[in-house]
Amino acid sequence: MNFNRRNFLRNAAIGAAGLAAIPEILSAAMPLSPLKKKGLLSTMEKGDVILFQGDSITDAGRERQKQEANSPASFGSGYAFLAASGILNDYASKEFSIYNRGISGNKVYQLAERWQKDCLDLKPHVLSILIGVNDFWHKLNGNYNGTVEIYETDFRKLLVETKKMLPNVQLVIGEPYAVLDGSAVDEKWFPEFDAYRHSSKKVAEEFEAIYIPFHDIFDQAQKYAPGKYWTADGVHPSMAGAALMAQAWLKAVE
Amino acid sequence: MNFNRRNFLRNAAIGAAGLAAIPEILSAAMPLSPLKKKGLLSTMEKGDVILFQGDSITDAGRERQKQEANSPASFGSGYAFLAASGILNDYASKEFSIYNRGISGNKVYQLAERWQKDCLDLKPHVLSILIGVNDFWHKLNGNYNGTVEIYETDFRKLLVETKKMLPNVQLVIGEPYAVLDGSAVDEKWFPEFDAYRHSSKKVAEEFEAIYIPFHDIFDQAQKYAPGKYWTADGVHPSMAGAALMAQAWLKAVE
Repeated sequence: MNFNRRNFLRNAAIGAAGLAAIPEILSAAMPLSPLKKKGLLSTMEKGDVILFQGDSITDAGRERQKQEANSPASFGSGYAFLAASGILNDYASKEFSIYNRGISGNKVYQLAERWQKDCLDLKPHVLSILIGVNDFWHKLNGNYNGTVEIYETDFRKLLVETKKMLPNVQLVIGEPYAVLDGSAVDEKWFPEFDAYRHSSKKVAEEFEAIYIPFHDIFDQAQKYAPGKYWTADGVHPSMAGAALMAQAWLKAVE
Repeated sequence: MNFNRRNFLRNAAIGAAGLAAIPEILSAAMPLSPLKKKGLLSTMEKGDVILFQGDSITDAGRERQKQEANSPASFGSGYAFLAASGILNDYASKEFSIYNRGISGNKVYQLAERWQKDCLDLKPHVLSILIGVNDFWHKLNGNYNGTVEIYETDFRKLLVETKKMLPNVQLVIGEPYAVLDGSAVDEKWFPEFDAYRHSSKKVAEEFEAIYIPFHDIFDQAQKYAPGKYWTADGVHPSMAGAALMAQAWLKAVE
């Protein structure tokens, strides 16, 4: 093995004519987070496990009967695939095992129901969780009677259990987001939805998680292109939106 | 819109600790191709169409009932998703429509059977085709009685028809590849499989296509990590392999 230490993404081949907003968006939305851990990936051990958990945004159409690490079909086509592909190339010699166990429609209590099998048994060293939009959305559309207090309490309970079983796990928590311009997101979402965002940040701080402010990031992104460019329904990202989220994830653990 | 001209991939966030082999692999395998077109993407018009065509490597588990441009589910989780995500971010203001119409198991004659609907009707400005491994593989396993002459003749006929209907289309042709270390690829593949590689290059030259030497690229890649790191069965890429292919695609059209 003779890996060069240069950065594959930094050396990528699109060329100077590219018209990219992403670095500016991320700099504006992620200024100097006290929750950021410098150089997380480079300090990890060879063979360590990274797990992406969440709802449909993380699931991204993965083949759920396939449970393999580092496998495209097991990752679907979302931010987790894009972020994991970058990690596997930039840290090839680390031989990480990266899993995706997001499931569409999940709320935080549904993560808890499958947590032993879909998290604890995998013994992740880095555990990334993006959950919360359905906790609000399904309530709004009358299919769930949870509250933001239930969301926060359930989330905290899940993480207490996680830290008990995996005391050294590094948590990465993504802020639930909603983009007003999307077909499924209207004024009725706000300000009530903001309470879920704030709960996720509060919980992240309690557990010293790396926090990714996705809602702020999509707010900044709308300075460069309309909301529908980043997500058609306001919840599920477009390809451009998924790439933005992946870059944010990587920047957060940089 | 206020896009900065910096390159999102170049400014990505993994950091200097990354251990990346991809730039070296691509430099070695793609030295000074006479078939390369400088700056293709930046010279394209706003709203232009890019189409990825091929077999399972391109299909990559996409939801085939969804036929949308720029949609993650319509792209599956392969090199086309990774390449298209990069393009859509680096050239956001160009508002390209990018499609994936790869179908698992396809040989070149099966592209021809669905070419009107799955290519000509989409009126692509850039048409990327990766086809040929099944033309050989299905013959080897007794499920097809084609030859390399049939592959080359059918491929040429398909492109004559394409250029007749779309005289200004820019073709991008990927070299069929097979990695000997994979579970499905053994010594019986060579040297016969090499003839399919050479036919694809010959056809690419005849039609002034941009040519991506995937087989050479995977040969080079094995200097940095075993074949199974890049593709478990020798044909379908891992996440690292898909990222390598996407970077090669982007470098070829740079």
